[in-house]
Amino acid sequence: MTVETLTRVEDWPGLRNADGGRWHYLDTAATAQKPQVVIDAMTRAIGADYATVHRGVYTRSAEMTLGYEAARRRVAALVGGEDSELVFTRGATEAINLVAQSWGVANLKPGDRVLLSQLEHHSNIVPWQLIQDRTGLAIDVCPLTADGRIDLDAAERMLTPAHKLVALAHVSNVLGSVLDAPRAVALAHGVGAKILLDGCQAVARLPVDVKALGCDFYAFSGHKLYGPTGIGALWARAEILDAMPPWQGGGSMIDRVTFEKTTWAPAPQRFEAGTPAIVEAIGFGVAADFVKDKGLAAIHAHESGLVRLAREALGRINTVRLFGPEDSAGIVSFALEGVHPHDLGTILDEENVAIRAGHHCAQPLMEHLGVPATARASFGIYSDESDVAALVRGIERTMRIFA
Amino acid sequence: MTVETLTRVEDWPGLRNADGGRWHYLDTAATAQKPQVVIDAMTRAIGADYATVHRGVYTRSAEMTLGYEAARRRVAALVGGEDSELVFTRGATEAINLVAQSWGVANLKPGDRVLLSQLEHHSNIVPWQLIQDRTGLAIDVCPLTADGRIDLDAAERMLTPAHKLVALAHVSNVLGSVLDAPRAVALAHGVGAKILLDGCQAVARLPVDVKALGCDFYAFSGHKLYGPTGIGALWARAEILDAMPPWQGGGSMIDRVTFEKTTWAPAPQRFEAGTPAIVEAIGFGVAADFVKDKGLAAIHAHESGLVRLAREALGRINTVRLFGPEDSAGIVSFALEGVHPHDLGTILDEENVAIRAGHHCAQPLMEHLGVPATARASFGIYSDESDVAALVRGIERTMRIFA
Repeated sequence: MTVETLTRVEDWPGLRNADGGRWHYLDTAATAQKPQVVIDAMTRAIGADYATVHRGVYTRSAEMTLGYEAARRRVAALVGGEDSELVFTRGATEAINLVAQSWGVANLKPGDRVLLSQLEHHSNIVPWQLIQDRTGLAIDVCPLTADGRIDLDAAERMLTPAHKLVALAHVSNVLGSVLDAPRAVALAHGVGAKILLDGCQAVARLPVDVKALGCDFYAFSGHKLYGPTGIGALWARAEILDAMPPWQGGGSMIDRVTFEKTTWAPAPQRFEAGTPAIVEAIGFGVAADFVKDKGLAAIHAHESGLVRLAREALGRINTVRLFGPEDSAGIVSFALEGVHPHDLGTILDEENVAIRAGHHCAQPLMEHLGVPATARASFGIYSDESDVAALVRGIERTMRIFA
Repeated sequence: MTVETLTRVEDWPGLRNADGGRWHYLDTAATAQKPQVVIDAMTRAIGADYATVHRGVYTRSAEMTLGYEAARRRVAALVGGEDSELVFTRGATEAINLVAQSWGVANLKPGDRVLLSQLEHHSNIVPWQLIQDRTGLAIDVCPLTADGRIDLDAAERMLTPAHKLVALAHVSNVLGSVLDAPRAVALAHGVGAKILLDGCQAVARLPVDVKALGCDFYAFSGHKLYGPTGIGALWARAEILDAMPPWQGGGSMIDRVTFEKTTWAPAPQRFEAGTPAIVEAIGFGVAADFVKDKGLAAIHAHESGLVRLAREALGRINTVRLFGPEDSAGIVSFALEGVHPHDLGTILDEENVAIRAGHHCAQPLMEHLGVPATARASFGIYSDESDVAALVRGIERTMRIFA
């Protein structure tokens, strides 16, 4: 089987090793490397083009404002949303905290219930726990199927009119399992609940269209989408976003400030207090266009091919236990009998192979799997067969060391 | 009078105009241009050195973690603090919102009072208004002296044991007036109140030592300190920070997550949920070292010289009204009789001079000054006499146009 790459390795300065050779980077689910086009856009934005946005009366600031708002359109368009529905946040984590602390606090009352799942990232668990005391909400946990999907049959049985929100990972960051999002949306809306999708892994791995899905909130980050750190986005349906109260106060999110009474700017500005992450927004917009141009269906097919290849190769090793479904979106979690994932990761590092070993900010899932940690290899648009081969070679070497 | 520059204009790609000539950038109080050394550090961090922090078992991630934590030490050292007391935030605005929503909500009760001043930036007003309903706190507003300083004599008369917090700008973003911070700290502590200083303008303009000042909270941003957008910092005294409850939930800020009970990481990690602004932290650290190496006393002297020069020149123009004190830290706000500041800004733009015109996110101060807006020229380490001369030339041209 041949996996064709969608991009040239030369366009990714982060994929070069210290000695100039290829680094087998299999930690894209933690954070993606950046294409030169994103780096170059940011270098221009922080250098020759640099100015603040929304406030300057001079040309360069007006141009930067146009660039910043164009970036909002690009990022919104990537997920099929309107720019007026897209809030730039510090990251996906802040996006979910924004929903919890603004929408959640305003709308959730004692007796109300929120449905999460056993495979959620901590960023889609802890924000809801943090507002439990303020709101009186109760959290229910949807179990998983044997192959590591969110069990929507179970969700259907669990959901009641007391459920006001369903918040689920679109793609699991550990198992790569893809949520049947249309069904999840239908189930949530069927009981009158809103639905939030944590799209961190999905936006870079699958075509996403929030309007077609019909979801209410969609959260994702820049750095997992081949874009900058320090920025993420919350897309929310216009009528929901418009009704949400402000969360953080400061410049740009106000209409008029007096000590007696302060009034608010409309969304999305209402949720962007202070000087925004200007340079990061520009880079985020370029990254969104980059993956859109490459085509998310093509990226998904590419990564699915690598997953098949990796699962086949790892499946031939007796001492490997594979987690998650066969049709994982670019992510393979596994354990090597008798070897702690951290030790495996350290030996692979000597072989120029970078994997993640740990709980992946998903401790409840680790508990479910009955392991303290997994090893995880995750692919991106720049991954190819040589990465899988290097991984397998490294595992074989590890087995010899531990034999 | 000769103003010597502390740095070469060639080291600042943002100071070049579209035609390659010098841009007279007088909006440094809004956001500072970046030296090449900061841009280069970020290009490396997002390119050849890029990896996540705190989680990877491979060398490059371990190295990035060292770099990220070294940046924390550098930024903390700039203000005389310990790295364990420094939280990276999205910006100064988020830093103040963090104090309000974590420390404020946990510590402020009905009947408690917070003292602000008439010249505060919206980012040090609105966060306190946003928690008024939750806490029952009352806000008092310290008036200003005739020359635009926070009137600490008035503060002394106003403060009572009901005051639990005093929150003041160290340097006014509109007037450049410098707070007598040691006296403000003594007054606050004299009634048992904590004191927060909004250091956004001060950190880039004056030597700051939080330990010598004895303050409790110090908030500042990266982008005003010749560093990146998308990052800022909260310094807080260790025993206060350690006792603060978490605000945003997610990865990295937890000790252990279960659906039954989640426990928290120690500060500062407890306040840094999610993948941090890695690249921005690296750039912030380099910027902090950059201004430290140049010397903040030297930068302050340099900017004070430019302020004197500008105030003298503007003072000779009959139709100019100058705001703020003579000893402003690098910032000159003024009005030109019969010309709206926005029109002035637009004409100056044609002359390659960038000033800010507006309310500067300080509407209560505008109300005090009795104007809807001011024109503001603000200097930085790269500013020189040619900038002042260009400003004066531009004002004279504007006067001819409006004559």
